Amino acid sequence: MRPLIVLFGDSHTEESFREGGWGAALAHHFSRSADIVLRGYNGYNTRWALKVLDRVMDGVGRSPAAITVFFGANDAALADKYNRLQHVPLDEYKENLQAICSSIKERWPSTIVILITPPPIYDEGLQKHPSGDDNSGELERTNVSTGDFAKACIDVANNSGVPVIDIWSEIQNYPDWEKSLLGWDGMHLSDQGNRILFEEVVKELKKAGMSLETFPTDLPLFANLDEKDPLKSFTGM
Amino acid sequence: MRPLIVLFGDSHTEESFREGGWGAALAHHFSRSADIVLRGYNGYNTRWALKVLDRVMDGVGRSPAAITVFFGANDAALADKYNRLQHVPLDEYKENLQAICSSIKERWPSTIVILITPPPIYDEGLQKHPSGDDNSGELERTNVSTGDFAKACIDVANNSGVPVIDIWSEIQNYPDWEKSLLGWDGMHLSDQGNRILFEEVVKELKKAGMSLETFPTDLPLFANLDEKDPLKSFTGM
Repeated sequence: MRPLIVLFGDSHTEESFREGGWGAALAHHFSRSADIVLRGYNGYNTRWALKVLDRVMDGVGRSPAAITVFFGANDAALADKYNRLQHVPLDEYKENLQAICSSIKERWPSTIVILITPPPIYDEGLQKHPSGDDNSGELERTNVSTGDFAKACIDVANNSGVPVIDIWSEIQNYPDWEKSLLGWDGMHLSDQGNRILFEEVVKELKKAGMSLETFPTDLPLFANLDEKDPLKSFTGM
Repeated sequence: MRPLIVLFGDSHTEESFREGGWGAALAHHFSRSADIVLRGYNGYNTRWALKVLDRVMDGVGRSPAAITVFFGANDAALADKYNRLQHVPLDEYKENLQAICSSIKERWPSTIVILITPPPIYDEGLQKHPSGDDNSGELERTNVSTGDFAKACIDVANNSGVPVIDIWSEIQNYPDWEKSLLGWDGMHLSDQGNRILFEEVVKELKKAGMSLETFPTDLPLFANLDEKDPLKSFTGM
């Protein structure tokens, strides 16, 4: 059985197999060595994620080698603005995320959980592309509020002893990140932003001992077959 | 458990999760409803595929709803040219493909097997980009020879009563297919070619009753949550 990597999160995960997406890049990277399973739920916050956690994990089929947990972008929707339905108070977000980590660790003690902070917001871009029929003219989430959730995510990771990818900070290290690393909506990652996240996930997996070097390659590579007797490589299969 | 779709084949499958690939597009299409599992083995022909079939199928975890079987491009390598190691005689190709279909059907009688013919070759493009250190100047596979394998694949499908995607013919229906639907090597599909294959796979799955309309959506859509009491949608989970 190939090692299983589960991607659990909101739209940043659900959309991760579109062209240029970080999930598809991961599946391509491990095309001969691991299975990548998508469990992204557009619009979900940690309150709802915690409610469905058992059912989601029941459905992944086998004990995962690693799970990315990538929530917070929706929790960070402002409590009194258009997307208030998604808002979760910061303290509850931390409790929910902590509970998600604990529950996964209890179910599968050797599974590596990798937390990912929400990505940054380009406020100006978001303002130009409001959600649905929001014509309030008011931002319903901001980079500053999302940053509070990113910091809370890091706290949870440190308290739980699990690795975390601070994509909120990482993205903002690049010049012109607002336009080059975020997409047209000022909120979701662009292809280049997805690439950075993909590389960070590969890096964290490697730190946890999971890489192309450590995962066995599924079946002999064509280049390694015996030219004189290729069937020899498949003896006993 | 979400329905499982297994992609079994050679490099046309192994590479299907790269940017613009048909496998990633399928995973994105079914992002909330099915798991797509990659079992592509670059360079493999049906002789080797048949040898490893049991082991591959043992490793997919659960009974698949559908399996795409996409071999023939390497079998069609010419018997006396650079890639002769990959060549499989036409009759043996048919027997192997037939045996692969029968074995899957015996293991999982309700699994839908979808055969895919090898894609066409742009001889001139391939000649400009020979494999490895091949400096013979001679084509090691051709569109005509590959077409024989495509027709054989269709025969096997008809004899086995399984659906088949004739991507060899389909691609050649388009003007300028040689340059627009095949990649730089004259052999692998371009992004547009991948798109056509993706659409054909979606169409065949739909004919077999598998589509966004028939697969249940995993967990309530955000848009369908009760605005006054979103948690109500998750009762009992």
